[in-house]
Amino acid sequence: MTTPSTPFGNAPVATLEQARVLDRADPLARFRDAFVIEDPDLLYLDGNSLGRLPVRTREHVRHAVDVGWGRDLIRSWSETPSGGDWFDAPARIGDRIGSLIGAAAGQVTVSDSTSVNLFKLAMAALGARPGRSKIVSDTMNFPSDLYVLQGAARAAVPERTLALVPAASGEIEPDLDALDAAIDDSTALVSLSLVTFKSGYLYDAAALTERAHRSGALVLWDLSHAAGAVPLDLDRWNVDLAVGCSYKYLNGGPGAPAFLYVNQVLQPMLESPIWGWFGQTDPFGFGLTYRPVEGVGRFMVGTPPVLSTLAIEPGLELLLEAGMPALRDKSLALGSFLIAAFEARLEPLGFSLGSPRPAERRGSHLSLRHPDARRIGQALREHGVIPDFREPDNLRFGLVPLYTSFEDVWRAVDVLANIVSQGGHERVTHVESIVT
Amino acid sequence: MTTPSTPFGNAPVATLEQARVLDRADPLARFRDAFVIEDPDLLYLDGNSLGRLPVRTREHVRHAVDVGWGRDLIRSWSETPSGGDWFDAPARIGDRIGSLIGAAAGQVTVSDSTSVNLFKLAMAALGARPGRSKIVSDTMNFPSDLYVLQGAARAAVPERTLALVPAASGEIEPDLDALDAAIDDSTALVSLSLVTFKSGYLYDAAALTERAHRSGALVLWDLSHAAGAVPLDLDRWNVDLAVGCSYKYLNGGPGAPAFLYVNQVLQPMLESPIWGWFGQTDPFGFGLTYRPVEGVGRFMVGTPPVLSTLAIEPGLELLLEAGMPALRDKSLALGSFLIAAFEARLEPLGFSLGSPRPAERRGSHLSLRHPDARRIGQALREHGVIPDFREPDNLRFGLVPLYTSFEDVWRAVDVLANIVSQGGHERVTHVESIVT
Repeated sequence: MTTPSTPFGNAPVATLEQARVLDRADPLARFRDAFVIEDPDLLYLDGNSLGRLPVRTREHVRHAVDVGWGRDLIRSWSETPSGGDWFDAPARIGDRIGSLIGAAAGQVTVSDSTSVNLFKLAMAALGARPGRSKIVSDTMNFPSDLYVLQGAARAAVPERTLALVPAASGEIEPDLDALDAAIDDSTALVSLSLVTFKSGYLYDAAALTERAHRSGALVLWDLSHAAGAVPLDLDRWNVDLAVGCSYKYLNGGPGAPAFLYVNQVLQPMLESPIWGWFGQTDPFGFGLTYRPVEGVGRFMVGTPPVLSTLAIEPGLELLLEAGMPALRDKSLALGSFLIAAFEARLEPLGFSLGSPRPAERRGSHLSLRHPDARRIGQALREHGVIPDFREPDNLRFGLVPLYTSFEDVWRAVDVLANIVSQGGHERVTHVESIVT
Repeated sequence: MTTPSTPFGNAPVATLEQARVLDRADPLARFRDAFVIEDPDLLYLDGNSLGRLPVRTREHVRHAVDVGWGRDLIRSWSETPSGGDWFDAPARIGDRIGSLIGAAAGQVTVSDSTSVNLFKLAMAALGARPGRSKIVSDTMNFPSDLYVLQGAARAAVPERTLALVPAASGEIEPDLDALDAAIDDSTALVSLSLVTFKSGYLYDAAALTERAHRSGALVLWDLSHAAGAVPLDLDRWNVDLAVGCSYKYLNGGPGAPAFLYVNQVLQPMLESPIWGWFGQTDPFGFGLTYRPVEGVGRFMVGTPPVLSTLAIEPGLELLLEAGMPALRDKSLALGSFLIAAFEARLEPLGFSLGSPRPAERRGSHLSLRHPDARRIGQALREHGVIPDFREPDNLRFGLVPLYTSFEDVWRAVDVLANIVSQGGHERVTHVESIVT
C-alpha cells in the first residue's frame, strides 16, 4: 500500500487470510450491500466497463416509469409533488457530478454520449483557436475519442491535423517527453483520457493542463475511466473542458448519458456546433433564431433520455457518501493487493503487468497481459470470473472500491492461476465475441 | 369522416351519444387497456408530446434493470438466455420502426436525440452537395430543427445559407408556391417537419421529395409528429433522409432515443461528421483510425442509452399490431369529431381552428386557437384536461388512436366550453410555466 496512514496498512501479502484481514479493516465494506448482487459466487471485475446496479436505482427507475411517466405524464417535466422536474435533471445531476470531480456548480451538465460531447467541446475549442493548426493526443487515448478528434479535425474551419503521439515502449505509459514536444504554438487543443482505457495509466492532469496553457492551447480531458475512480479537482487544476461517462465507476447504468464540463471562464466564449432547443434561451418561446443560453447548458442539444438520466442519481449518491479520499485509499490498496498476488502466482505463469506499478500513476483498473489472454478470458468467464479482454493480450480487472472486496481479488487470481497452471485455457475451443 | 369505408361512418355529429356510438364501433378500442391509465378521470390529450406508458413497458424496463443490468451485467451486451443483446438493440428496434414507416431493413437505426441526428444527416447531405449554397426550410418547422440547420449551415464547408420560407398567412399551412420557388439548382438540402408541430399540417412527402430531386437537392424529413400518426412510405417515396422521435406517438418514454433513416442507395456516399466507435468497423478491434461501418450504422456515435432504448420496443409492437391503416382511420375520425365539436361549441366562444380542415392534410393533433389560450390551458389543467400550449395562442390536442376515445374528445370540449363560457379562465391568476 502506498501510504501507511490508510486503514489497509502497508504489507501486501497476497494470501486469502490477508485478504480477509483487509476486508475486515475496510471502512467502505458496508457499501457492498448497497448493490444488487444476485450471484454471490460471480466474481465481477468489470465495473470499469459497466458498474453494478445500486439497490436504490431499482426503485428510482421504477418510480420514474410508474409515477413520473405512467401517472404524471407530461407534467413531470416541471416540478411535481412526486419528484418530476425532468427539465432540470441534467443540470441538477451535473452539479452533483461536479461536486465529485472538483467542479463548482454551473459547469457540468448531463447530455448525450461521451463521444457526442467530445465532438461538441472539441469543435468549440477549435473555434476558439482559429489560428492554430493542430490537435494533440496520443495512442493511449480511447479509440472512439481518436475517431471523434479525427472527424473534428476534418470538420473544423480551417481544417486541422491530429498529432498522435505514440506511447512509450510497452504501451503502458505515455511518452511524456514526446507529448511535451508535440505541444507548441500551433496547438489548438490537447485531448487525452485522464486514465487510459487499457493500461489504466493516470496522467498528471494539473501539470499537463498547465503545460498546454503555457503554449496557449486548450485542454479537453476524457474522464470516463477517472470519474469516481481517482480524485479529481478540475477547477483547481484550471481544466478547460472535460467529458466523461457515467456507466462505469458512477454506476449509472448501461449507456447512461454522459457528462460534460466547461470551465465557467470559457462558457461565454465557446459555441457548440450542434444548436438544439435544450441549449436555447427560452426554448418554449419557440423563436426561429438560435440564441444560446448562458452557461454550460448551451452544450445541451435535444430532449435528454429521461429514464437513463435519472438512473444516474442513486449511484452518484453512494460515491458522494463514501467520499473520494476513502475510495482512493481502497482502490489503491486493492490494486496493490492484485499486484502482489500477480507477482506471487501469475508472473511465474507467463503473465506480465500491463499497468503502471507506482500507485500515483494508477487508476482503478489494472491490466494483466498474457500471450493467450483471449482464451484465458473465456476460461475465466466459464469459471464465473468476469474481467474483460482488450486487444491484443490484456485482461482488465476493474477494482471498484464500493463493491470489490480483497477476497474477490484473491479468488479471481486463484481461479486464474489454477486455470493457467493446469492448461485449462488451452482446452478452450470457442471464444465468445466480446462486446464492450 | 373522410372515407365512408371506415368503421366510423360519415356523420360527425358532436354529441356525447355520438361519441359513444363511435367508441363502440372502434376496432382499436381494446388497445386502451394496453396502456397504464392510473386516473381514468384525467383527459390526457398530450400524447403528441409524451405518449402514454404501455403496460408491457413497465415489465420490460424492470427486466432490463433487474436482470439485464443487475444480474447479467456486462454480458447483456451480447446475446443472453434472458434477452440481452444490447449491442444489436438499436438496429433491431430501428428495423421495426422501419416496418412502421415504410423502410426496408437496414436503413433505420435508433441513436442519440432527434436534434443530434438531424445535425449528422444535414452535415452529411451538405457534404454530398458541396457545390450548392442553400438549405431550404420553412417557418413551420420545429424551431430546434431550425437551430440545428442554422448551425449546420454555419459549420459546413463551404458555409451555406438557410432559406427560411414564411408560412402562408394564418400560419396553419405552408406556402407551397414559395417553397417551390425557393428550391432551385443552388439548393443542397430541403428539410421540413412532415407534420408540423403547431398546426399539425401534413405535407405531401412524395411530391415534395420529387420536387427536391428535380432540382438535384436531397431531402431530410423530420418525422417526429408523423411516425405512428400518419401512414409513411419512405422507400416508395424515394426519401433520402429522415429523423424522428420515439416518445410521441411511438410511446417510447420521456426523451427516448430518436431514430434516423438513410436510404440504402445513399449510405455508401454519406459520411457522418461525428465519428464514434458505435459507427466503426470492428469497434472491439480498437484500431486507431476511423473506418466507418457499411450501412446506416455509420451514423451511430457513442454507447447508446440502453434503458431508454429498450423502453421503445413494447410501444412500437402495439402500433405494428394495430396497423397504420386502422390507426389513420381512427385518427382522422377523432379529428373530424373534434372539428365538429369545435364548430358546435367553441367557435361561438371565440376559438378558431389552428389546423388544416381537410383530412388529407392533417396529422394526428389539432390546434385550437384563442387569444386567451395560455390562461385557458391553465384552467383546463386545473380541471383535469391536459392539452399543451404553443405560443402565441395555440392549444394543441393530441388524438392518439391507440388510447384516445371519442368520449375523451367530447368531454374535453365540454370542459373547455364550460370554462370559457363561464369565464373560468379569466379567474386564472398564475400560469404554470409550460415545459415541453
